[in-house]
Amino acid sequence: MRLNPNMAATFPPPVMEARRWIDGVDFPKDRPLINVSQAAPVDPPPAPLREAMAQFVLGDDATHLYGPVLGLPELRTEVADQWSAAYGGAISGSQVAITSGCNQAFASMISTLCAAGDEVIVPTPWYFNHKMWLDMGGITSVALKAGDGLLPSVSDAAALITSKTRAITLVTPNNPGGVEYPSELVGAFFDLCQSRGIALIVDETYRDFDSRTGAPHDLFTRPDWEQTLIHLYSFSKAYRLTGHRVGAMVASEAQLAEAEKFLDTVTICPNQLGQRAALWGMQNLGPWLAEQRAEILTRRAAIEAHFPRLAGKGWTLQGNGAYFAYMTHPFDEPSDKLAQRMVKEISVLCLPGTMFMPEGDPSGAKSLRIAFANIDAAGIAELFERMESL
Amino acid sequence: MRLNPNMAATFPPPVMEARRWIDGVDFPKDRPLINVSQAAPVDPPPAPLREAMAQFVLGDDATHLYGPVLGLPELRTEVADQWSAAYGGAISGSQVAITSGCNQAFASMISTLCAAGDEVIVPTPWYFNHKMWLDMGGITSVALKAGDGLLPSVSDAAALITSKTRAITLVTPNNPGGVEYPSELVGAFFDLCQSRGIALIVDETYRDFDSRTGAPHDLFTRPDWEQTLIHLYSFSKAYRLTGHRVGAMVASEAQLAEAEKFLDTVTICPNQLGQRAALWGMQNLGPWLAEQRAEILTRRAAIEAHFPRLAGKGWTLQGNGAYFAYMTHPFDEPSDKLAQRMVKEISVLCLPGTMFMPEGDPSGAKSLRIAFANIDAAGIAELFERMESL
Repeated sequence: MRLNPNMAATFPPPVMEARRWIDGVDFPKDRPLINVSQAAPVDPPPAPLREAMAQFVLGDDATHLYGPVLGLPELRTEVADQWSAAYGGAISGSQVAITSGCNQAFASMISTLCAAGDEVIVPTPWYFNHKMWLDMGGITSVALKAGDGLLPSVSDAAALITSKTRAITLVTPNNPGGVEYPSELVGAFFDLCQSRGIALIVDETYRDFDSRTGAPHDLFTRPDWEQTLIHLYSFSKAYRLTGHRVGAMVASEAQLAEAEKFLDTVTICPNQLGQRAALWGMQNLGPWLAEQRAEILTRRAAIEAHFPRLAGKGWTLQGNGAYFAYMTHPFDEPSDKLAQRMVKEISVLCLPGTMFMPEGDPSGAKSLRIAFANIDAAGIAELFERMESL
Repeated sequence: MRLNPNMAATFPPPVMEARRWIDGVDFPKDRPLINVSQAAPVDPPPAPLREAMAQFVLGDDATHLYGPVLGLPELRTEVADQWSAAYGGAISGSQVAITSGCNQAFASMISTLCAAGDEVIVPTPWYFNHKMWLDMGGITSVALKAGDGLLPSVSDAAALITSKTRAITLVTPNNPGGVEYPSELVGAFFDLCQSRGIALIVDETYRDFDSRTGAPHDLFTRPDWEQTLIHLYSFSKAYRLTGHRVGAMVASEAQLAEAEKFLDTVTICPNQLGQRAALWGMQNLGPWLAEQRAEILTRRAAIEAHFPRLAGKGWTLQGNGAYFAYMTHPFDEPSDKLAQRMVKEISVLCLPGTMFMPEGDPSGAKSLRIAFANIDAAGIAELFERMESL
C-alpha cells in the first residue's frame, strides 16, 4: 500500500508523543510526576451531573440510539440562547451544530472551506491539531508570527492573504499562548476577513475561563456576521466531559448544511449521552462553573506570583491565561530536549514550543507550554521550586 | 466565503433527506409508519449492559477523561483475541484501533491511503457514506457494477485498476444489497489487491448477523495479510450502541500510526463510555447476541417467505441478508419518487436505490432497500401487505 503523502508528511500526535516520554519511567516517591502537558481536567464531572448521566443511561432509551447529524435540537437551542445573551447578538438554534468535540468542529469547517492547494492563515504559536488537519488535506498553514504579547497583527495578516486564502483562524483565549485577544483585535480581524471575502474561524474553547467580564468581542452583533464568522466551542473543559467528546460550532445554516455531509460521513452523529450531559450542565451548573473559573483564575495568579523566581534565572513569561502559561527558557538546548530532561530530572511533563511552531522556527526551541489547570496553588509552588532547580 | 468545490459536489446525507420526507406527516391511526429506512436497532441495549454503563458513569472516573487516541487497550486486545479465534488468524491488540463508529474507521483509513486525484474501486450498489467521503477528498469512486446475485466480479475489478487506484472496498454482508460474499470471492479480491500493491478494505459491520457458520473468509490466515488487508467493524448493531459511536478496525501497526494522526485531529479519542460498553458486551453478551442473530435470520426468512406475493406483481428480490432486502420494483416512476409515494400511500419509509448508485445509473431508479431488522415477523407480513397494495 502506498501512503497518502499529505498524511505521511504531517507529524504524529504531540500529546501521544509526550505520553511516551513518561512510559516506564519510575518517578521517585518523594518527587512524583507533575503532569502539565495536556489541557484537560483530571477530575470527573461533579456528582450531580454524573447522577443525571446515569439516569439517562438507565431511563432514556434515545440516549442509546442515533440522533440528528447536527446534534440534539434542545442543545442547539440552548447554545444559541446562552451565546445570544453572552455576546449580545441574535443566534438561532439552526445556526448551531453539535460535534464530537471541538477538534471535529474545526475539521468539518475547514473541509467545507478548503480543498488541497488552498491556504489558511494561522497565528503562531499555533494549536498543533489545527496544523495537522490542514497538512492532511494538502492545505497550507500560513504562519502569522505573533507580535508583542503573543498577539497577531492584522496588517501582517492582510499582507499574507493571497487568492488561495480561505480563512484566518484565531484561538482566544489562546492555546498554547494563554493570551486573551482584545475585543478590538478580534473585531479588526473580522473586518479584514469580511472585506476580503474569507472566513474568520474563532475558537473559544477556553471562553469559560476568560478573566474579563462581559462579551469578549462584538462579532455576533455585526450585521451579516454569519457570512464571515465561524465560532467554535468545547464542552470538555467547562463540564469536565473530555471523555465524552462534545463540542459546538456556530455558522450560517448554509455552511452547516455542508458540514452536515462531513459529520454524517465521519461520525453519523455526536454521541447522545455526551450531548445530554452538556445540556444538563448548561442548564444546571452555572454557579458551579463560576466557582471553577474563579479557581482557574487563582491558579493563573499563582503562576504570576511565582514567576519572578524563574525570571531571575533568565526565563520570561510570554502569556498566562486560560489553562496555559507560555514561557521562554534560558538554556542552550532546544525545548524538546529540555522537556525530556525535565521528565528525568524534576519529574515534570510539559510540552515544548517546537510542537506549536513551524518546523525549524527558532522561537519554538526557546519556549515551553505549562498547562496549569490541573495543579492547585500548592502544586504550582512545587512546580516552580522544581523548575528553579533545573 | 467560497465553498470547497469537492464538498459542494457531494450529496446531502441520504438518511437525513429521507427523514425530511416524513417531517410533519400525520400517519393514519390504523396505518402507522413502518420505518425501514435506517439500519439501526430501535431498542436500547439489554438491561444488564445499561446497568453496567450506569456503574461506569458513577464509579469509574476514567470514563469521563481523555483516553488513548487508538482506543482502550483492553478493548483492542479483546477484539484481537475474538477475531483471531473467529477467523483463525493471529491478530495482536496493536493491530486493532477503536474509532468513533465504523464510518470514522473508513474515513481515517481512506485518508491514510488517498490524496485528491486518487481512485478507489467500489462495487455498486454502494454504501452512500463511502461515496460521500471519497467525493469530499477529491477521490474518484470507480463504480464496479455488481453482477449476478449482486456479487462483484474480480476480473471486472482488475480491468478498472489504474496507476491512481489505491484500494478496493468490499462490504460483506453487504449494505445495501444484503448479500454475503462467498469466502472464495473475498479471497480472490485479496489476491488481486496483493498482486497489484493496493489495499483491500473489508467492512464487516454486519458480521454478527451472517447466516453462515464458521469464518466467512480466510484473509487473516494469509501470510502478510496486514500488508494488504484493512478490516472494519461496528459495535453499533450487535450491542445496540448506535448512540454511543464505537467501531473498530484492524490493520498493520504502521497504517494505524498514520490513522492515529487523523483520529487525534478529528476526535482526540473515541468516547470512553461507549468503549467500556463495547468491551462489557463482548465479554458478557455472547449468548444474548446469538439470540439476536437467530431473530434477524428469522426475519430474513420471513422476507423470503412473503416475497412471492410481490414477485407475482413484477418485483424481484436481488439480495436478502444482514439487515437488508434489496429489490427491484415494477413501476415506471424512479425509485426516489416511489419511495416518497410509499410514505404517503402506505406509510412506509425506505431508501430508494438512487441513493446507492452513481447519479443517472438506471438500475438505481429501479431498486429499493428495505432495512428489515427493526420489524418482527408480524411487521414484515404487514409491510408486504401494504407493498402489495401499491
